[in-house]
Amino acid sequence: MTLKRITILGSTGSIGTQALELISLFSEKFRVVGLSARGNLQLLAEQTRKFQPKMISVPDDKAGRFLKKTIGPGIRIVIGEDGLNELTSFKGAELILIALGGSVGLKPLLEAIDSGKDIALANKEPMVMAGELITERARKKGVRIIPVDSEHSAIFQLIEGRRFSEISRVIITSSGGPFRTKTLKQMRRVSVSQALNHPTWRMGKKVSVDSATLMNKALEMIEARWFFNLPPEKISVLIHPQSIVHSLVEMTDGAMFAHLSIPDMRIPIAYALFYPERPKLNFPRLNLARVRELNFEEPDMERFPGLKLGFQALKTCGTLPAVMNAADEEAVSAFLLGKIRFNRIVELVGEVMKMHKAKAVKSVDDIVLADQWARDIARELINA
Amino acid sequence: MTLKRITILGSTGSIGTQALELISLFSEKFRVVGLSARGNLQLLAEQTRKFQPKMISVPDDKAGRFLKKTIGPGIRIVIGEDGLNELTSFKGAELILIALGGSVGLKPLLEAIDSGKDIALANKEPMVMAGELITERARKKGVRIIPVDSEHSAIFQLIEGRRFSEISRVIITSSGGPFRTKTLKQMRRVSVSQALNHPTWRMGKKVSVDSATLMNKALEMIEARWFFNLPPEKISVLIHPQSIVHSLVEMTDGAMFAHLSIPDMRIPIAYALFYPERPKLNFPRLNLARVRELNFEEPDMERFPGLKLGFQALKTCGTLPAVMNAADEEAVSAFLLGKIRFNRIVELVGEVMKMHKAKAVKSVDDIVLADQWARDIARELINA
Repeated sequence: MTLKRITILGSTGSIGTQALELISLFSEKFRVVGLSARGNLQLLAEQTRKFQPKMISVPDDKAGRFLKKTIGPGIRIVIGEDGLNELTSFKGAELILIALGGSVGLKPLLEAIDSGKDIALANKEPMVMAGELITERARKKGVRIIPVDSEHSAIFQLIEGRRFSEISRVIITSSGGPFRTKTLKQMRRVSVSQALNHPTWRMGKKVSVDSATLMNKALEMIEARWFFNLPPEKISVLIHPQSIVHSLVEMTDGAMFAHLSIPDMRIPIAYALFYPERPKLNFPRLNLARVRELNFEEPDMERFPGLKLGFQALKTCGTLPAVMNAADEEAVSAFLLGKIRFNRIVELVGEVMKMHKAKAVKSVDDIVLADQWARDIARELINA
Repeated sequence: MTLKRITILGSTGSIGTQALELISLFSEKFRVVGLSARGNLQLLAEQTRKFQPKMISVPDDKAGRFLKKTIGPGIRIVIGEDGLNELTSFKGAELILIALGGSVGLKPLLEAIDSGKDIALANKEPMVMAGELITERARKKGVRIIPVDSEHSAIFQLIEGRRFSEISRVIITSSGGPFRTKTLKQMRRVSVSQALNHPTWRMGKKVSVDSATLMNKALEMIEARWFFNLPPEKISVLIHPQSIVHSLVEMTDGAMFAHLSIPDMRIPIAYALFYPERPKLNFPRLNLARVRELNFEEPDMERFPGLKLGFQALKTCGTLPAVMNAADEEAVSAFLLGKIRFNRIVELVGEVMKMHKAKAVKSVDDIVLADQWARDIARELINA
């Protein structure tokens, strides 16, 4: 393997920092050529000093001045949305890891596809919003999009090299989140810190709350639809509290293939960075005899109605997944700010979806409009 | 897929009858051209009338006369070892399913390889005895050997298309057999019918007893060594009472792939018959939420010393696996006849192995001699 040149969008987030940790471990394999971050500029400065990229992207002039002062000369600093576009299309990288949070990743993702680079995609929202457009554009450009999400990485690995016609369905596993055994009534009184306290994964705030409502799984079903070109009836969800089986694929003969590992995001991140090779990682290994048991249960759609919304969005498609995603982003923000209760998140997403007349997606504008419409409605409902 | 012409050696046994059941279900895909059986001639006659093969092989003249009378004219009946050889090398078949019991499968297997047919191998003993010779000869002849054993079929499917260098190890699962939770002392008082009462699989007598002593797993380690060209240190065993995970493969990044299904031998048999395609089977499917839990534990080498013998044979190789296999066949026969106690089976195998000076295998004769030597010693010990 020759040196692979990488740009990371969202380098100070949970995925970004773990990716850089891996790159440090395999410095003979990778060269960081670009970094972008919005918050935590101090960390971005440290990363920049350590990895010496050619270009970094920051949100505004003030951040630009801070970075310039902190890291000294010699590295190009680009500003705002235009800057992020410049970094994304920067020809010096062969692979771009998109690890932004939420729908802001959509435009950089499209930009990255147009620039012809391979993409490691950690950011699930763009695929939920505009999966059909994205995968079609990537196919036309010959761009490879490797999933970073543990579930989608698992499915990607399980179906690689298998005949599409021999796949009966994929089964996306879910830990069930921190409230798996709670009643609907108990979930009304849930605090922000309880919702952020995920039993098996350490993640960003948005994903953690989505994992508590299971809206995360709703988003992942749509993501799977587009990543693997699967019709809705071939996608299902299974609760597996230990987060060791990351997903399964059922074949036409009834055999199932499962992907297992300790819950450590560095494993799927490394898979995406090294793809098509598989690295040798010396992290702790899964010991099934020590784990002793793996548990499974049907998802409870009554206690976790977000799953129902997911199946509905999956079946309807068009603009509905973008609406679901936008309403969820707004609702989660409101919850984190203490404006609404936990159980209100999914209720509110459902109300916005109900008000939406889904239509086919012909362009990114259709998505952007649906997204904006859903946010406006969601905010109205939040402030009502 | 065009019509595949198949010969089945051992058509009245557990694997043979299930293979014919599958062939009935997919009569547009397969044509049975040859059958062989030693016992149950009545069933062989029924199978012959139903499937109308071109040739059938029976053990002796008396059986030949019985079949001739029962099935009428038009089908060639061949007799004894020569007859079996003639059937095995019969050019009318593209695939031969070898589902004989024990070491008697070795010569037909070599004959089948020499005749250039693809082989579905259900009979584990030949691979244990002479795996190196067999796989080398098959490679030279360009003959494909597809495993039928559920564990090896699982591993075969899991590693297909993956880079050999990226495989850390394979983990062969074992139900632990009917005496998984019994003490050594309790196992001394075990009856034949208890030993034959396997918790998860319905199988022939020899395999059932081997599954109770875990000698079956000892044989399967050696089998895996040759089927997948794995060094001994890459082969391990894990107890999994439900027999749903049929085996696992650990990759260099710590990810594991598992193959799961309900325990139904028709699934791996169908895989081997259809290979390289995968059939659509409408058998009951695995429902993990209904299963609720999958359990795993380390194998206990003290209570199941057959595993220790397996690892020893795996490391030493040469003629030792053939000796282990032969001694086990003799010991199991003696147990089934009430001549020795259950716990004596593995003891006796260990004693014979201890007395053997293992040497490298240069020819089939080396194997045959070691096998004969081990049987003689085992019989002496049994009758002592």
